[in-house]
Amino acid sequence: MATKILATWALALRYTNLTQSVHDIAVKSIANWAGCAIGGYGQPAPGRVLDAMSPFIPTENANSTILGTDVVVDVQTAALINGVASHADDYDDTHRDNPIHPSGPVLSALLALAEWKAPISGQDFMTAFVVGVEAECKLGVSVFPEHYNVGWHITSTVGSIGAAVAAGRLLGLDTVQMQRAISMAAIQVTGMHDSFGTDAKPFHVGRAAQNGLMAALLAEKSVTASLEGIEAERGWVNVVSTRENVTAGFSTLGDVWEIELNTFKPFPCDRIIHAAIDGWIQLRTKAIDHGLDISSIVNVTARVHPRVLFLTDNPEPNTGLEAKFSLYHAAAIALLYGEATPSQFTDEAAQDEAVVDLRSKVHATSDGTVEEHEAFVAAEFKNGDTVEIHVEHVTGSWENPLTTEQLKAKFIDQTSTIMGNDRAEKAWSAYWNIANATDISKVIRSY
Amino acid sequence: MATKILATWALALRYTNLTQSVHDIAVKSIANWAGCAIGGYGQPAPGRVLDAMSPFIPTENANSTILGTDVVVDVQTAALINGVASHADDYDDTHRDNPIHPSGPVLSALLALAEWKAPISGQDFMTAFVVGVEAECKLGVSVFPEHYNVGWHITSTVGSIGAAVAAGRLLGLDTVQMQRAISMAAIQVTGMHDSFGTDAKPFHVGRAAQNGLMAALLAEKSVTASLEGIEAERGWVNVVSTRENVTAGFSTLGDVWEIELNTFKPFPCDRIIHAAIDGWIQLRTKAIDHGLDISSIVNVTARVHPRVLFLTDNPEPNTGLEAKFSLYHAAAIALLYGEATPSQFTDEAAQDEAVVDLRSKVHATSDGTVEEHEAFVAAEFKNGDTVEIHVEHVTGSWENPLTTEQLKAKFIDQTSTIMGNDRAEKAWSAYWNIANATDISKVIRSY
Repeated sequence: MATKILATWALALRYTNLTQSVHDIAVKSIANWAGCAIGGYGQPAPGRVLDAMSPFIPTENANSTILGTDVVVDVQTAALINGVASHADDYDDTHRDNPIHPSGPVLSALLALAEWKAPISGQDFMTAFVVGVEAECKLGVSVFPEHYNVGWHITSTVGSIGAAVAAGRLLGLDTVQMQRAISMAAIQVTGMHDSFGTDAKPFHVGRAAQNGLMAALLAEKSVTASLEGIEAERGWVNVVSTRENVTAGFSTLGDVWEIELNTFKPFPCDRIIHAAIDGWIQLRTKAIDHGLDISSIVNVTARVHPRVLFLTDNPEPNTGLEAKFSLYHAAAIALLYGEATPSQFTDEAAQDEAVVDLRSKVHATSDGTVEEHEAFVAAEFKNGDTVEIHVEHVTGSWENPLTTEQLKAKFIDQTSTIMGNDRAEKAWSAYWNIANATDISKVIRSY
Repeated sequence: MATKILATWALALRYTNLTQSVHDIAVKSIANWAGCAIGGYGQPAPGRVLDAMSPFIPTENANSTILGTDVVVDVQTAALINGVASHADDYDDTHRDNPIHPSGPVLSALLALAEWKAPISGQDFMTAFVVGVEAECKLGVSVFPEHYNVGWHITSTVGSIGAAVAAGRLLGLDTVQMQRAISMAAIQVTGMHDSFGTDAKPFHVGRAAQNGLMAALLAEKSVTASLEGIEAERGWVNVVSTRENVTAGFSTLGDVWEIELNTFKPFPCDRIIHAAIDGWIQLRTKAIDHGLDISSIVNVTARVHPRVLFLTDNPEPNTGLEAKFSLYHAAAIALLYGEATPSQFTDEAAQDEAVVDLRSKVHATSDGTVEEHEAFVAAEFKNGDTVEIHVEHVTGSWENPLTTEQLKAKFIDQTSTIMGNDRAEKAWSAYWNIANATDISKVIRSY
């Protein structure tokens, strides 16, 4: 019954059912995602994918904007490219209990669709968004960690289903059509870890958005599919998870809101190394306060959660994308520059002599008693001094979230390089007030 | 090294490397597939999918034909729709040792691409086709049966990789680009068993073709991806297979040809029930020869390979698509009509009173000592007589293949209902002589 339960709930939810805290974090999620999509268009991946797809843009029904540009394309291409862009900097958002980046697949499909099907109100848009996030995150929690640990990129594997539910709701599917849309998204399982550090990683997110959108478009035209795509004996849950007795976790839909557990990244790299980066930035300040010279560091250590080395044990990244999955690079740039922004994760930064030298001095150990949002870091200096930092709750974590001011600063920092400061400020206001919009397509054209 | 080995081999193979038997079965595979795609367009699924995609057809670069129509669309849409159509009747082809239908994903991508990139010669086309089939079938054999038994639709899960290799070769990718194309196809895993009996099953094949094609198009534009998508610790083989120590089986590439193990379906339904159908058709003739009345059957039995009931244990199918996965329906139509053609697998046939009555008398047992291409069937009549048949090698099996005449008759039967007998004859000649073509796009326009 899981598929039908999800379909029924997704179609029944009303904007007025959203609690204030759900509403507020949904707005933050939308604004944060839009900043990542606009800024992320500056990475090579989205442009390369658009280049490959450019022969296939129709002249009619090209109403959907590629964020960060004035280019409009069809809804499928926009969902793909915005999805790629929004994840290209690895700077988006993360569920507290799960490495899902919830907004990317859902919003990439939904925003492109809302432009095509204009006018869509802000309230309808937000409701569809929340529905999509709840769907994908309930599924993700139900199969985590086994599904993730075997190598699936959980953001995209559950994301296509979230995108289908959100798009299906906006398209006005009936319950059976929605069940079919869920099933057609579920049988398209996209994304594995071996893509990490390449353009294929953000491609997962764009393709998941497109797969979910397509599933909804097919269901709208009465393409038939399983009505039990999630729970069938040889359907999603049983095929992609080795966990025994897994349930889809939909019994708490509308009572426990997964979106309330969303967090926003402070650094543009795999969030598993954020706690250590936070620590090294603090360590740098403390060391300088004590008159120590960063260039005299002889040894750097980190004691971290085991998943850190599972994902980022790359001592010699060659590109900016690889650097986003290197604990060693992260240590070097945090200690050298005292910050971790997109400019510290470029090809140049990865090949910088000082960075290469310092990262060779980094040694990390896994410790199962350390939490994911926690890190113990230290640096030893030539004069024999050692500086240590214990980060209990990394900045940007659920326990220590980015403030609205920090979120806005992140947004402006990402978008102003693409569109200048004035438009960046306007764009922030537009997304921040999205709930009041009468037509989502005008939000995008207002900045 | 598996990904690099495959990429290197795929780019190095020459038309002159194809043995005569590889060449001959490749031609048969192409002709058989084209007949299925043309005839399959008469099923509802391809039209429904095209309806959903029709807003997005570009005016430029619309050079690729939807088989069975005169409609031309872009290469991605043609790959999708032809893939859906070619599998919609479940009448295509099957690898001897594996339930892979090899031609669908590869040819759906390749033919559409050959029209777009015209002129492509018949020799280049055939070489790319063989490369794609070898890639997908080597992979399929390496993960079968565990990968299949858990619920993956292996035709599409390996098919996207076969399509990427074939398309990548036609696009002239270099080795690194080909490795990336393979990896981007590998991270898009499409198709589960719970779709069987619905439009989503043939959708798997079309989407696999499109996914593989897209992976090659992205790689051509330098989108980066893993260079070890097949063998990486958290890449394809390890993520989609629970088998221990699996290898990709590429050591025999070019020595053992998988395409030589291709077989062609005699009946438009899941090939796992073909042996039993063959038996019941023979049984009907024998019974009538003995003066028995088919309407006086009181009990029907089958003793079959265990995978038969794993896939087709549906005693009450409601639609033609569901009937293709019902051993009970198969028994009824084979005994009542003495044949199993597309007209026995329609919604009307599934709901026919005589069929419904007879299928309720069918009882099947699994027997691990019976081979997949074997069946023991029997029918008991009101007068107490029992007629039994043992099918050792079903017609259409590797040991008992369809003759060229039977293949042609199947082609003409499928296509003449769509385009009339004259065009059907011309189309058969066109595909049968494809190796001599100087421009594949003209082959399609020649009938």
